[in-house]
Amino acid sequence: SMKSVSMKVVGSGRRLARGRRLLSVGRGQYGPVGDAESQWFERLLGSKYAIRRAEDPELLRCHSTDWTRRWEPKEADVSPLLLFPGTEQEVAACVQYCAEHRIPIVPQGGNTGLVGGSTPSQPGQVILGLARLNKVVSIDEEEGILHCEAGCILEHLQQFVGQRGFEMPVDLGAKGSCQIGGNLATNAGGIRFVRHGSLRSSVLMLRAIDGRGQILEMGTRMRKDNTGYDTKQFFIGSEGTLGVITSAVLTLPRLPVDRQTALLAVGSFDSAASLAFAAKNILGETLSAIEWLDTAAMRHVLSHFSPEHVTTPFSSDTAQCNFLLVEAAGARAEHDREKLEHFLEWALEADLGISDAVLAHDGKQTANLWAIREGCPVALTGAGLVCYKYDISLPIRTFDSVISATKARLADRRVAAEVVCWGHLGDGNLHINVATKHHNPAVEEALEPWLFEVVNAAGGSISAEHGVGRCKQKYMELIKGAQALRLMQELKTVFDPHAIMNPGIMMPPVSPQA
Amino acid sequence: SMKSVSMKVVGSGRRLARGRRLLSVGRGQYGPVGDAESQWFERLLGSKYAIRRAEDPELLRCHSTDWTRRWEPKEADVSPLLLFPGTEQEVAACVQYCAEHRIPIVPQGGNTGLVGGSTPSQPGQVILGLARLNKVVSIDEEEGILHCEAGCILEHLQQFVGQRGFEMPVDLGAKGSCQIGGNLATNAGGIRFVRHGSLRSSVLMLRAIDGRGQILEMGTRMRKDNTGYDTKQFFIGSEGTLGVITSAVLTLPRLPVDRQTALLAVGSFDSAASLAFAAKNILGETLSAIEWLDTAAMRHVLSHFSPEHVTTPFSSDTAQCNFLLVEAAGARAEHDREKLEHFLEWALEADLGISDAVLAHDGKQTANLWAIREGCPVALTGAGLVCYKYDISLPIRTFDSVISATKARLADRRVAAEVVCWGHLGDGNLHINVATKHHNPAVEEALEPWLFEVVNAAGGSISAEHGVGRCKQKYMELIKGAQALRLMQELKTVFDPHAIMNPGIMMPPVSPQA
Ligand SMILES: Cc1cc2nc3c(=O)[nH]c(=O)nc-3n(C[C@H](O)[C@H](O)[C@H](O)COP(=O)(O)OP(=O)(O)OC[C@H]3O[C@@H](n4cnc5c(N)ncnc54)[C@H](O)[C@@H]3O)c2cc1C
Ligand SMILES: Cc1cc2nc3c(=O)[nH]c(=O)nc-3n(C[C@H](O)[C@H](O)[C@H](O)COP(=O)(O)OP(=O)(O)OC[C@H]3O[C@@H](n4cnc5c(N)ncnc54)[C@H](O)[C@@H]3O)c2cc1C
Repeated sequence: SMKSVSMKVVGSGRRLARGRRLLSVGRGQYGPVGDAESQWFERLLGSKYAIRRAEDPELLRCHSTDWTRRWEPKEADVSPLLLFPGTEQEVAACVQYCAEHRIPIVPQGGNTGLVGGSTPSQPGQVILGLARLNKVVSIDEEEGILHCEAGCILEHLQQFVGQRGFEMPVDLGAKGSCQIGGNLATNAGGIRFVRHGSLRSSVLMLRAIDGRGQILEMGTRMRKDNTGYDTKQFFIGSEGTLGVITSAVLTLPRLPVDRQTALLAVGSFDSAASLAFAAKNILGETLSAIEWLDTAAMRHVLSHFSPEHVTTPFSSDTAQCNFLLVEAAGARAEHDREKLEHFLEWALEADLGISDAVLAHDGKQTANLWAIREGCPVALTGAGLVCYKYDISLPIRTFDSVISATKARLADRRVAAEVVCWGHLGDGNLHINVATKHHNPAVEEALEPWLFEVVNAAGGSISAEHGVGRCKQKYMELIKGAQALRLMQELKTVFDPHAIMNPGIMMPPVSPQA
Repeated sequence: SMKSVSMKVVGSGRRLARGRRLLSVGRGQYGPVGDAESQWFERLLGSKYAIRRAEDPELLRCHSTDWTRRWEPKEADVSPLLLFPGTEQEVAACVQYCAEHRIPIVPQGGNTGLVGGSTPSQPGQVILGLARLNKVVSIDEEEGILHCEAGCILEHLQQFVGQRGFEMPVDLGAKGSCQIGGNLATNAGGIRFVRHGSLRSSVLMLRAIDGRGQILEMGTRMRKDNTGYDTKQFFIGSEGTLGVITSAVLTLPRLPVDRQTALLAVGSFDSAASLAFAAKNILGETLSAIEWLDTAAMRHVLSHFSPEHVTTPFSSDTAQCNFLLVEAAGARAEHDREKLEHFLEWALEADLGISDAVLAHDGKQTANLWAIREGCPVALTGAGLVCYKYDISLPIRTFDSVISATKARLADRRVAAEVVCWGHLGDGNLHINVATKHHNPAVEEALEPWLFEVVNAAGGSISAEHGVGRCKQKYMELIKGAQALRLMQELKTVFDPHAIMNPGIMMPPVSPQA
């Protein structure tokens, strides 16, 4: 069932009557989603899979609410219609109908995105859910090449390929709910980036429906294919603004035989950075994670979770330390262990102010070290704190000064908030979390756009992995410049001439063409 | 000097008078390169760096001739003008002038491309050479991040970063002449693809001049940056058809401490394939090369080179064998060696018909094994043979049947030619070489488009690494389909509205807009 052509227009949904009148009051030139439209979708998908707000207000409200609840919808913003097409052809038919009728669409995967991109940003948007496109199309167990539909849940794929000796090239905390299509649409990062690089480098082929309703097949299942522009790269990280991803072919890394994990407690951030660079040198190709958390993050984790779940692995006093998790994983466990032990010996001898260091000796200890790092987000929200998340990239040696400046700025403005930091240190990706007791607009006022300007001036990125979404859309001009943004808009228009694909997300809004 | 913005239009060359009359006879609506135009460039660059054909016919002919000499130019096709801008600003000024005057440009790096993309494909094209943009802008020796200009020669960069403990993410036979800009413009593959993946995955930022003369900065120097469409991916592999790449930021892998190399002689291709998969499993992350050559290739290498340069490493008779080169390279030499020895033990015990196997014990032996594999192209052309090159990707288990079918087809048609094969087996990349005593059109008649149709039907790629160029442009519709090709054309037009960037290459020709 795999096709051999790349960026081929395979077909398109049914052709529909043209020339329909468009509503041009209230919501620009977007068309309405009324009875007639809903009936059309019910005929196509069956009423079980085309659900009106009137029928199930709770379900529609739930799918219209983002994971962070930062963009909890007003009544009018709840989507009028939730679609669950069951095949790629049905997706194409839905999009083509929407294109003809100028109905805006928000594609939705697991709805775990953190930037408000997967829920309606204005009234009258239909939600197109991918949950029913959840089949593995094929796997080549020799070459390690997986073809799967967009709605497959990441964790299911991890299990499926794991049983065959492979690993998914991406792993993240939301794995139990997020879909591979959502991961691709956001170019998700996560804890394996340091080993396997950007998710985009593992994608060999993408199938997607563009904003005209055309089925595109971009790339082949070949590792090497230099024939023309690599259009699939455009869809990766496009946050639903160009079309709907329906399936993907990925190249899979081999599953390591085991993992060797260590946690180090160090006195200063600069020591942690030096250790991270040394880990890259000493562990080389077996390095599989370098994660970092600060004093406050560790304190929150240890106080939030019960000791049966997470405990400190250190016997000495590490209350003032920050922490580095380092992992080696490869084809030969004893080699990985030797390299990690060598690194720890080096670290303890180097004059870097290491307070303590532990090496996990069994699966339980490994799980505990990871629970500390992965428990950070839950520890904050679980403590009932409101959490303002800044997901930034910076030159590694500058992390500390940006964190200090952020704390100083909040103190200066007398904003009562705690700054808690962690991140994928090996990739230069820092998560600054500003935790407050209640929702407090003063945080955003103090830090936005100030922090983004600081990051931009340092040559960093204001969105390392979560994407732009609704959250940072208004800063796109700051970081790209007006002319380049216009160029991007021109490129979007090629795929989505009617501006129906996730309007209001990532790109500055434009009016649909009549 | 590094900017922090991505896909930002930084500026553009000088503005020029509009509304100039265009020649619309003979060469569509492209403008002429006459005295006035040449003088303009001489004023901009100095006459040393704007060289007219009349001044130095030999030099212009040389730069108008491709490496394979397959597209040796007729007198009229020799470029009228060769430009060597010295700065990015000068490149921008040149392109903007050409945009205003509708003068077609072919960007040229080291001119080692194998698909006729780096030399004029029609009369009146100026050649824009990047040789003077040859500076390293910066290197971060902790993070392993290199910013260099497009005209830097690959081998120079390899030496420069090698001295600092890093490796370039690409390596190939033409390294002494090819430029990083040319590597990026062709998304070059080569022998390290199996380890580091596609070159495109190592590019963090690109600066380029688009076909309007605008300076674009695409991406940041950050490993992770999910802000908007990844436009730089569009330029990577675009073969000069969108604009001129002027500089790039690359993330560098660590230099391995040593290399452990083995050569195996096996009885059948299927055994070689099984060994390749086993090597991936057993060597895991330390695997750094899986190269393959057939019986004929080995025979040519051993007969072409003198024994001081290349010798067979085998003591037994391997005259009927095909050969697999496997290499491990990492952070700890003894680990790599143990893994490679483990692989060889496994291989010798497995029932795969291995005739012989050698493990290099010193640098000289390693160099000899590599000289066998890297000597293949030179052995054929050095023997005075004309060589028709087919650079394809295929599912690995199908290599053999496609090679047999190719031989059968030539025999069927009584074409006197020898089929000699080698390739990057670990990546599914096969090089079929059809060698003849003299140029023989019957080869192309027999194999084109037949072979491309076979490859396409098998889900393969008709150009794995060399690109499309002039060579395979006419097959783009076969593999992409007419509609998708039109979409690509629309995307090209966004960057190059006047169709001045390398017309006739990769994309079907269009007329420049008046
Ligand atoms: C606990 C937790 C931990 C996380 N950790 C990380 C992390 O470490 N690294 C990281 O990068 N992110 C992380 N995230 C955020 C991350 O972006 C998402 O978890 C995931 O990648 C989104 O997948 P999803 O299926 O939930 O997509 P959604 O949330 O449903 O959608 C995300 C965006 O993609 C679009 N989209 C979804 N599916 C498609 C499709 N098939 N075609 C076109 N567009 C589509 C949507 O319109 C939306 O713009 C985390 C989130 C949570 C809740
Ligand atoms: C002996 C030999 C071995 C080779 N081995 C391999 C191999 O293993 N793998 C592989 O993939 N290739 C291989 N090649 C071909 C490979 O494509 C080129 O060697 C190299 O990548 C091209 O670099 P160049 O600077 O010579 O570019 P050129 O040949 O000058 O140009 C190639 C293309 O890129 C464009 N271009 C060049 N510079 C720029 C720029 N700055 N901006 C925009 N466009 C530009 C040109 O217009 C042209 O279309 C080999 C070639 C030779 C001669």
